[in-house]
Amino acid sequence: MIKERIEALRHCMAEWGWNAAVTVGEDPHNSEYTPKRWCQREFISGFTGSAGVVIVTESHAGLWTDSRYWIQAAAELEGTGIELHKMVSVEDKDWISWIADNIPAGGKVGIDGLCMSMNEATQLNNALVPKGASVISKPDYLEALWPDRALLPQGKVRVHEEIYAGRSRADKICWLRGELERKGCRYMFLNCLDQIAWLLNIRSNDVEYCPFVISFALVGPEQVWLFAEISKFETDVISDLEKDNVRVMPYSECGKFIGTLKASGKVLIDSGSLNYETGRAIAVCFGQDNTVSGDSPVEVAKSVKNEVEIEGFRKAYIQDGIVQTRFFKWLEEEVTAGHRITESDASDKLHQLRAAMPDFLDESFETISAYGRNAALPHYTTVRGRDAVIEPHGLYLNDSGAHYKYGTTDITRTVPMGPLTDLEREDYTLDMMAMIDLAMAIFPEGTPGCRIDAIARRPLWQAMRNFGHGTGHGVGNVLSVHEGPQSIRQNLKSQPLLPGMITSDEPGIYREGFHGVRHENMILCVPAGENEFGRWLSFETLTLTYLDVTPLVIPLMERRELEWLNQFNNNVFNTLKPYLDDSETEWLASKTKAINIG
Amino acid sequence: MIKERIEALRHCMAEWGWNAAVTVGEDPHNSEYTPKRWCQREFISGFTGSAGVVIVTESHAGLWTDSRYWIQAAAELEGTGIELHKMVSVEDKDWISWIADNIPAGGKVGIDGLCMSMNEATQLNNALVPKGASVISKPDYLEALWPDRALLPQGKVRVHEEIYAGRSRADKICWLRGELERKGCRYMFLNCLDQIAWLLNIRSNDVEYCPFVISFALVGPEQVWLFAEISKFETDVISDLEKDNVRVMPYSECGKFIGTLKASGKVLIDSGSLNYETGRAIAVCFGQDNTVSGDSPVEVAKSVKNEVEIEGFRKAYIQDGIVQTRFFKWLEEEVTAGHRITESDASDKLHQLRAAMPDFLDESFETISAYGRNAALPHYTTVRGRDAVIEPHGLYLNDSGAHYKYGTTDITRTVPMGPLTDLEREDYTLDMMAMIDLAMAIFPEGTPGCRIDAIARRPLWQAMRNFGHGTGHGVGNVLSVHEGPQSIRQNLKSQPLLPGMITSDEPGIYREGFHGVRHENMILCVPAGENEFGRWLSFETLTLTYLDVTPLVIPLMERRELEWLNQFNNNVFNTLKPYLDDSETEWLASKTKAINIG
Repeated sequence: MIKERIEALRHCMAEWGWNAAVTVGEDPHNSEYTPKRWCQREFISGFTGSAGVVIVTESHAGLWTDSRYWIQAAAELEGTGIELHKMVSVEDKDWISWIADNIPAGGKVGIDGLCMSMNEATQLNNALVPKGASVISKPDYLEALWPDRALLPQGKVRVHEEIYAGRSRADKICWLRGELERKGCRYMFLNCLDQIAWLLNIRSNDVEYCPFVISFALVGPEQVWLFAEISKFETDVISDLEKDNVRVMPYSECGKFIGTLKASGKVLIDSGSLNYETGRAIAVCFGQDNTVSGDSPVEVAKSVKNEVEIEGFRKAYIQDGIVQTRFFKWLEEEVTAGHRITESDASDKLHQLRAAMPDFLDESFETISAYGRNAALPHYTTVRGRDAVIEPHGLYLNDSGAHYKYGTTDITRTVPMGPLTDLEREDYTLDMMAMIDLAMAIFPEGTPGCRIDAIARRPLWQAMRNFGHGTGHGVGNVLSVHEGPQSIRQNLKSQPLLPGMITSDEPGIYREGFHGVRHENMILCVPAGENEFGRWLSFETLTLTYLDVTPLVIPLMERRELEWLNQFNNNVFNTLKPYLDDSETEWLASKTKAINIG
Repeated sequence: MIKERIEALRHCMAEWGWNAAVTVGEDPHNSEYTPKRWCQREFISGFTGSAGVVIVTESHAGLWTDSRYWIQAAAELEGTGIELHKMVSVEDKDWISWIADNIPAGGKVGIDGLCMSMNEATQLNNALVPKGASVISKPDYLEALWPDRALLPQGKVRVHEEIYAGRSRADKICWLRGELERKGCRYMFLNCLDQIAWLLNIRSNDVEYCPFVISFALVGPEQVWLFAEISKFETDVISDLEKDNVRVMPYSECGKFIGTLKASGKVLIDSGSLNYETGRAIAVCFGQDNTVSGDSPVEVAKSVKNEVEIEGFRKAYIQDGIVQTRFFKWLEEEVTAGHRITESDASDKLHQLRAAMPDFLDESFETISAYGRNAALPHYTTVRGRDAVIEPHGLYLNDSGAHYKYGTTDITRTVPMGPLTDLEREDYTLDMMAMIDLAMAIFPEGTPGCRIDAIARRPLWQAMRNFGHGTGHGVGNVLSVHEGPQSIRQNLKSQPLLPGMITSDEPGIYREGFHGVRHENMILCVPAGENEFGRWLSFETLTLTYLDVTPLVIPLMERRELEWLNQFNNNVFNTLKPYLDDSETEWLASKTKAINIG
């Protein structure tokens, strides 16, 4: 089937005069999760990984992807005639050099300019210049080969009420206009779905796990134009938006509308995330000199949660604390009783418990339910039929989260299902120390996350252990569970941690073929005081799911860490007690009993 | 006098057709310490700070400098008619915008292109383009007003012998040619004095505290041209250089020589440090397309010390350990006996003790000898007559270092002169913990210094204390005591720490008006092993000067820190014992007695 698709594409390419066709597999909004409609890379190659580039020429078809996907890609490409090109890292642009080397002089490279960022298309075009070759953008060029292509999602748009958002749409728009003025701009074009949802206080279910509305928005000095599927809006939502001068326009007419807009003044765009096609339309409408490329002020603003949002997160963590108490109690009892529980059974049970909670909307990402060696894969996918049975020994890891009306959760717990090996206990302990050390950190105002990442890793590093993923990511408020601009990780990034930012704290240790440990709490950045050395920040832990202390190798830990742990579990117990029945309370009391520090 | 100089400059400017003259005060080699000859900023303005820009126009004279120098500049500029312009940070380019705003259309801005980097001159020129104005470079344009301008230093050049360098000149040049080939270059132009000294194994005394030869070097595929004052070379040094095909040419003829060179192929330059004038000559000779701007491979190579160099550092720290044992013993005895010892007396005594050591060459920087509140200024200058008397209470800080034939030292010790306040003891303890935590750190291969800076600062941060300078800088081998490319500090910089790099470990706490604490050891990056998580690095402490444990507040410290400290002092005692007389041995034994950990 893939072979036929590629042949069909080659026919089209001949007709269009293209020497190469590039499919990067992004959506027009630079989203983390690509909606089905835009899974073009998968359609043309069969490759289901989340990163990669497909290039088709008359004589060659290739997929460029990074080491995370080499094994999977090799399997998925079998029999397609597509060759696997290995990229050393996800940032590599080998495919661009490959095209530049292989394109004939004066050749044409076709792209879907809606689904490639301006920066990437510009890089590609620059690489072609020496050969007199150039980029041709044809939006949705695969459409003709793809009769059953998914439509735009049709779910309804709802207003994210001010009692949850903590700030009115009018206020946010007014603030943004002020920010634009400070930058000398009159307009801003927004293409990131989470930014639009935050700014306009709207939500839907267009993207799996992310309650976004697929849309673009243009903010002008008096008017906001929201480009989205009109059929998704009930009249009350339309009028709610209109009272703030937000006008809904058809999604497909965004480019055309911009083409006819008589705008004066400068427009702010984010050329790192804006797609090439829309970027071009904006540059034509406003003029190249009036198009200012810069970071979106919405990105930081949305990451700094207001008091109402913080209260919402607190409530969400109580909900999840109750759910998880019930879940881990059930799991322990079932497995101890010798019942056959698979990873999928556990996942389903957790979903049932969550779905039964008031104000539950959806999971915030696909639950990772991983037993034993499966937990050694940090992004393990639990698939019924291929999943493991949870046995009464070793470690079970559960990483899950939910959107409630007022907040979003993301929690990982690794729990003992029975006897553990010494190495399991040691890894469990060191990883706990890492999580606690970050949670306890105090640091000066202005510190970026990359500078405190080592505070979490230090206990692991001293024992020569480490993990390959970041330590912490931002979490949106009923938006994406992964959001920027802040992060706590290896990569050098200058964004400081700011009071009000909510970030995960999730170090891990993974031993292929044996076990995996990850402890994850959510931490809120808060002011910690001011003195002659400056202003200080620290974290408040929001998560309210108990931490199992029985596997700990106490002598490895420092007193301050043990004290933190006792206080944490004590707080979990006292906060959740009012919501639990007698047997749950008794069980949680046993799990949160203080360690004797002496 | 300054007023007259500025008037004289204005006369010249009128003659040359300049609307503004810029003096940045650098030397042609982008050196940290500017030789007298190039202190042009000081000559024209009277301002003696190490950073700032002077701009003179027909109607205005101004100095732009950062907050470190505002007070000093205001005092030094008094009566000169030069206005102080405050820059928020040393990286600010406000002065460029000022010129762009104030220059008439089509105006000319004069610079000394030998003493401004290519990057800076290009930035300036770009800012002038919108007004049709431009930069005019006139090397040494202040010369005519400056009859007593210092000549180039005339001290002799000596060969830094292979028994100390650990690697022959021929081998280094051959290695560099290989590196250039890998970058597709046939030539490299070197302008940084430490890089030239390292590459050619030559030393002199042209720059205070830095045993450099003021020179440029052009490395070609068969020949190296060294541009320096010919009179500085004895015939045996000339022939030693010539046997490796290094030809000495007059310093002043560098530009002219490049102008006439018939070179083919690409040339590597470092446009961040190369001066504008020489950069232009190179671009004319090689052609813009053949001029490759990039990091110099010498920068990393020289920072990674070979076995011989490391052995040399070890020896140097034994020398300094002996010297400092004698020094602190003397100081304690003198002050306890009630003798009047000033900061300068202490500094002089330390110099005498060092100068008496075999193989001593020079101090590696100006000794900081600071008692009590004076130690609260991290870069305090001890000036006889204005210096404090060291009293039998409080803390005394000494930061000093030396070049020996085989290695360079940099050591800070803060010692109690008698009773201390609780706050002095607490700061002393926390700062010791910070230094020890970094010294004990284990971290993965590839980690840049900025990522482990927080490991040193954590004990301070947890007590809401901090310091404004970096935690660690590289140290050259009989080169500059401050060298890159590695550093352990706040600023995000991606250079990884590599085995063989020697870096300082010097956290501090400063309380204006009260006291200052800094403990500084030198740490060598070494491999720490390899396992399933990757390859690991750690530090070996090279410094052999005892750490006084009497001020420590033991309960604040962790057991591992106390164990490290006991082991450190025990090693100091055992290593130095063979070199000390009986009374020194007895005294050091009392200072290095193990803390009872229990």
